[in-house]
Amino acid sequence: MDIEEANTDAAQRMIEARPVLVGLRKARDVIPGMRDNLLLHAGPPITWDRASGPLRGAIIGALIFEGLADDEDAAEAMVVNGEIDLEPCHHHQTVGPMAGVISPSMSVYIVENETHGNKSYSNINEGYGKVLRYGAYSEDVQERLRWMEDVMAPVLADAIAASEGIDIRTLLSEALHMGDEGHNRNKAGSLLFLKALSPHVAKVAGSVETASEVLGFIGDNALSVLNPVMAACKAMADAGHDVEGSTIVTVMARNGTDFGIRISGLGERWFTAPADVPDGLYFPSFEADDANADIGDSTITETAGIGGFAMAAAPAIVTFVSGTPKDAVNTTMEMYEINYAEHKHFTIPQLDFRGTPTGIDVRKVVEKGITPCVNTGIAHKEPGIGQIGAGLVRPPMAIFEEALVAFAEEYGY
Amino acid sequence: MDIEEANTDAAQRMIEARPVLVGLRKARDVIPGMRDNLLLHAGPPITWDRASGPLRGAIIGALIFEGLADDEDAAEAMVVNGEIDLEPCHHHQTVGPMAGVISPSMSVYIVENETHGNKSYSNINEGYGKVLRYGAYSEDVQERLRWMEDVMAPVLADAIAASEGIDIRTLLSEALHMGDEGHNRNKAGSLLFLKALSPHVAKVAGSVETASEVLGFIGDNALSVLNPVMAACKAMADAGHDVEGSTIVTVMARNGTDFGIRISGLGERWFTAPADVPDGLYFPSFEADDANADIGDSTITETAGIGGFAMAAAPAIVTFVSGTPKDAVNTTMEMYEINYAEHKHFTIPQLDFRGTPTGIDVRKVVEKGITPCVNTGIAHKEPGIGQIGAGLVRPPMAIFEEALVAFAEEYGY
Repeated sequence: MDIEEANTDAAQRMIEARPVLVGLRKARDVIPGMRDNLLLHAGPPITWDRASGPLRGAIIGALIFEGLADDEDAAEAMVVNGEIDLEPCHHHQTVGPMAGVISPSMSVYIVENETHGNKSYSNINEGYGKVLRYGAYSEDVQERLRWMEDVMAPVLADAIAASEGIDIRTLLSEALHMGDEGHNRNKAGSLLFLKALSPHVAKVAGSVETASEVLGFIGDNALSVLNPVMAACKAMADAGHDVEGSTIVTVMARNGTDFGIRISGLGERWFTAPADVPDGLYFPSFEADDANADIGDSTITETAGIGGFAMAAAPAIVTFVSGTPKDAVNTTMEMYEINYAEHKHFTIPQLDFRGTPTGIDVRKVVEKGITPCVNTGIAHKEPGIGQIGAGLVRPPMAIFEEALVAFAEEYGY
Repeated sequence: MDIEEANTDAAQRMIEARPVLVGLRKARDVIPGMRDNLLLHAGPPITWDRASGPLRGAIIGALIFEGLADDEDAAEAMVVNGEIDLEPCHHHQTVGPMAGVISPSMSVYIVENETHGNKSYSNINEGYGKVLRYGAYSEDVQERLRWMEDVMAPVLADAIAASEGIDIRTLLSEALHMGDEGHNRNKAGSLLFLKALSPHVAKVAGSVETASEVLGFIGDNALSVLNPVMAACKAMADAGHDVEGSTIVTVMARNGTDFGIRISGLGERWFTAPADVPDGLYFPSFEADDANADIGDSTITETAGIGGFAMAAAPAIVTFVSGTPKDAVNTTMEMYEINYAEHKHFTIPQLDFRGTPTGIDVRKVVEKGITPCVNTGIAHKEPGIGQIGAGLVRPPMAIFEEALVAFAEEYGY
């Protein structure tokens, strides 16, 4: 099959995918292959011995949350002894921000691609400060997780059901016209999410206090919609996966140790190399030496044509990730060099409504020597601390080179 | 007094003003000088015989709403016979969008400038379609007004009280980083307004159905926050008014027939000339011949340094008002030519976070031959129809020339 035809097909499938948030249910009840002794995590496969601090912290926290372990040592022992399996979210049509640890009792958003029928999943965003996804697992983190699960999740589930589905592609189209890029800045998108949910939350919450708390939690968290957005991007990227002969990247993900990618025409194979530390701005009292290597499945946003690729739409983000508004425009312009298509539904007003660069072509990355620009949060390298900054990072070039060699071998070029 | 010193003082007072939404009450109970036989209207003073179609329609609608007239003829007779007085909103620390007709029984937002203590008022936004502010007054318009007054206003009043005040300056600062310019595009600001109100609305609404309806109405109307924003801009502009020796414009307003301005150092005097028809984009089935002349107090936004002056922050607005994103940037750049200061709190990410042009200096307008650029809705010229488009318009140069001559006479230059 002709590579150009294959890539056109893969990119168009990603662009035509229409991800709609259709529900929220316990992971064990909906994620394919989820089981009681399984924890999902961000990025490519990894074992405990190679896991970074924040990933270990999130694993410990999830086992405590599940009631399977009482403390760090017990949790670690369960994983090391093989009582608990660790598998990538991406092996289960799922994505999670930062450590991305999802355990069976956690509720997950269900996104359905109405164009092609595939589904994807992500957990509920915890907000800021000390949170599980950055490897924090103390009692206050557990308490928030329990409130989210016991109080908020049933309300969100009923509100989403009452909404008859929230079209995340449309939400993202609007948010890109409101200064979001959809990865690190989801401020407008989270308010559009609040707008879609609030009339239903008021009706289904059961008590006015609960309605008020849930509306406050969703409204005050400018990352509320990040997880549904990531699931939507996963559904879009998956729609472009498994196209015979395509060199389009359909997964980019990091587990805090390795950065991994998958290629549309190369099935389930991962190409991995050590992840770099993001370059960015640190919160007061933290510095680059405290930073963990790049972590999280949130690079699914860039994979689907937003996030760092759409930075030109989000000039205000430079106050958070460093740089100038002109740098933000330049980043987007550079990304056109390595992407196969321009998005039909995601447009950038600042660039005369040009579509975002969509569908990373491994060939172009290698030929031009330009790696994808990712826009991300920075975790402390020790477990239990949390977010310490935000910045920009690029995957190692080696994984694209390796993927291109594998592609040539697979297809006999 | 030195003009430069006076203008610095006036502009800094406008910039340092901190308008906070503190309440919602019936116009008759809070607006200074409001009385049972008084209707407020947008723009400079006008009589029925010179009033435009949309202003006449709104007057008729307000008298029907008040139960003072049963139909058009009765309403007109009351005004012509002198039973009803018409006075500008601006004579009562008040502003209203488009026709800007406010009657005693309507609830109005109360904004207090916490820096200087002055207050301002505006009515509740009705949303889109056939609405009183565009001169529509049919039974469906009346029904919506009654629901707003009887059902929504008490909820909003209690929610605002429970919020302990909503800082509109901060809200605008955020909205300008989210693609709003604060006059014609208040999409992000209205969602920030929803975010601030929703936890309180859920608690105070009295029934879940009412909470749901109010949250839906506020969330679905991307102009929900326009009226509090206008009141905030009025409070800011008023803070800069009455500075002895200042040539800064503190009011720009149109009644659908005339465009009027007031100058900080020239007290309560209006300078007026016939208003032009905006140049813009029309909704399907309408054209420029259907358009009324420029109308509304919403030009208070430009007077305070946002709206058309901040268009560079809102590139997506060109799909609504015509032009290209580059035109939007050029408009803001041109406005720096005629403004005295740059805003400290309202910044434009696209221009490297430069402050918006603030404080129109009559001298600069006349010397450079550049009039302020206003970004506005377009009303049908016949009463009862409503909005037919949106676009850009400029006040007549004659009123700035006249004001400058008056200033020279007043101060003996």
